[in-house]
Amino acid sequence: MKYCIGVDIGGTTVKMGLFEEDGKILDKWEIVTDTSEEGKAVLPNIASSIAAKISEHGLDKRDVLGIGAGVPAPVNSEGIVNGSANLGWKYKEVKKELEELTGLSAYIGNDANVAALGEMWKGGGEGEKNMIMVTLGTGVGGGVIIDGKMLVGANGAGGEIGHICVNYSEKDQCGCGNRGCLEQYASATGIVRLAKQKLGQEMRSTVLNKEDVTAKDVFDAVKAGDEVAQEIAVEFGRYLGYGLANLAAVVDPAVFVIGGGVSKAGEVLLPYIEKPFMERAFFANKNVRFVLAQLGNDAGICGAAKMVLDAE
Amino acid sequence: MKYCIGVDIGGTTVKMGLFEEDGKILDKWEIVTDTSEEGKAVLPNIASSIAAKISEHGLDKRDVLGIGAGVPAPVNSEGIVNGSANLGWKYKEVKKELEELTGLSAYIGNDANVAALGEMWKGGGEGEKNMIMVTLGTGVGGGVIIDGKMLVGANGAGGEIGHICVNYSEKDQCGCGNRGCLEQYASATGIVRLAKQKLGQEMRSTVLNKEDVTAKDVFDAVKAGDEVAQEIAVEFGRYLGYGLANLAAVVDPAVFVIGGGVSKAGEVLLPYIEKPFMERAFFANKNVRFVLAQLGNDAGICGAAKMVLDAE
Repeated sequence: MKYCIGVDIGGTTVKMGLFEEDGKILDKWEIVTDTSEEGKAVLPNIASSIAAKISEHGLDKRDVLGIGAGVPAPVNSEGIVNGSANLGWKYKEVKKELEELTGLSAYIGNDANVAALGEMWKGGGEGEKNMIMVTLGTGVGGGVIIDGKMLVGANGAGGEIGHICVNYSEKDQCGCGNRGCLEQYASATGIVRLAKQKLGQEMRSTVLNKEDVTAKDVFDAVKAGDEVAQEIAVEFGRYLGYGLANLAAVVDPAVFVIGGGVSKAGEVLLPYIEKPFMERAFFANKNVRFVLAQLGNDAGICGAAKMVLDAE
Repeated sequence: MKYCIGVDIGGTTVKMGLFEEDGKILDKWEIVTDTSEEGKAVLPNIASSIAAKISEHGLDKRDVLGIGAGVPAPVNSEGIVNGSANLGWKYKEVKKELEELTGLSAYIGNDANVAALGEMWKGGGEGEKNMIMVTLGTGVGGGVIIDGKMLVGANGAGGEIGHICVNYSEKDQCGCGNRGCLEQYASATGIVRLAKQKLGQEMRSTVLNKEDVTAKDVFDAVKAGDEVAQEIAVEFGRYLGYGLANLAAVVDPAVFVIGGGVSKAGEVLLPYIEKPFMERAFFANKNVRFVLAQLGNDAGICGAAKMVLDAE
């Protein structure tokens, strides 16, 4: 039996998993991310944690095929990062350093792309090879899988779907400096923005409170039949569905996997996205399913392990 | 020396080329496309023309690595077409039929995607592996190359970039039934539409004639310094540049290759596209070049030949 390691490097914790080559997770653990001094301890800490875990399981390093790692930054095809705000890194040859520290082969990807690969392997996209994962969290992230492989892009910045423009009339600015980015409507923050705009001019009664509304409040109210909340969800879904219709014309996916904190609202979310998508999608791209992500926080370590297996 | 055949199947003619494996074109020829009776003679005519050409050059069929063919329709990964209006085809197993007819391996792709592969190999995208080709003709077509390979998509309908929405306020309908498609502004037909709208309410003098203006007229007038024409070009470029900025966020290309009839206007076109692109593109995707297509009508046969070489 051969093994591989999946690593999901975040700004607060590093999640790791020990996998059998058939995909079974033998062990999962995490360590704190030490971002001090430009994050110089991040990779050494990962390397020693992996070495200890290999030994704890009585494994021989020669039975470990390699390490995959997702990083919160664009990563080029040589496994090089040109700065990661979350980790404190400047230019870093992540693949090379991790290989030198561990004596194992390493494969590095952007965390959102890697999570998408994980969802294709063992999650919402299982069985498909062309997939777009949309992560609705504080921002909107994404990962695109083409013919079973992550779309990396020339600058390691493929799949940045939160920053496609879905409203050319928008007055407010996105964090990226543009106006009308998908993230301004479909992230948790964006939903709150839409809700506050709506509640500010709303005369009907609603359970939502303009002052401290959250994205979760909105979808809880949707489930409870609150009409105002449902109209906010329609607006959210229209921007997201229209945006995804544009992505579909380029990528022609078999499935959209919807993940991130907002997706915890559950299946109720999907028709709000699918209906406007179908209104706008090019006819040849309508043969596509909308599903929820299934792996939660494990998507990153799963996708990272899959990178190792795909390289074999 | 080994050889391969590139075929570009169009609704009027079939273009073919005999290539050495290093990419040199030994011979180019074309035959008329017989679309009668649901296009049943198209593939047999191609097969006999290739057989004659192989014999004419004194080659042994065993020295021919295979045939690549671009088809005006979505093509799935098994080389199957589910109907092509231009050829009269219904469901057709193109790869299988062509292999049976010729005794050679066949590789089939959508014509726009195949032309993009050709431009990457020997044209405007030479040296790059991540590229978007935009074909500005009667409509707007496209092909996306990711890591050196064509983006085919789950339904064979990847790269349909003419039908991304770039104007959610558009009142006029696109041929596809939607409103605001890129094709409504950036195709030759779309440019005429923009020009007629502009000329209908224009008081300044211009060399353009509202009744019979063409896309070529517009760019000829742009070159001559006509202010009204330049404003039409700005509007064309804004829709196209904004649309390409959205594509870049997904694909992160190193280069955009602009082809098709409209691109015959030449280098004058590029700044009109690049400026609005840079205004709107996500910062991580701005490291991209805009170039003109170089292969003209040969892009299709070149890309088709490259499919054969890539499969080896």
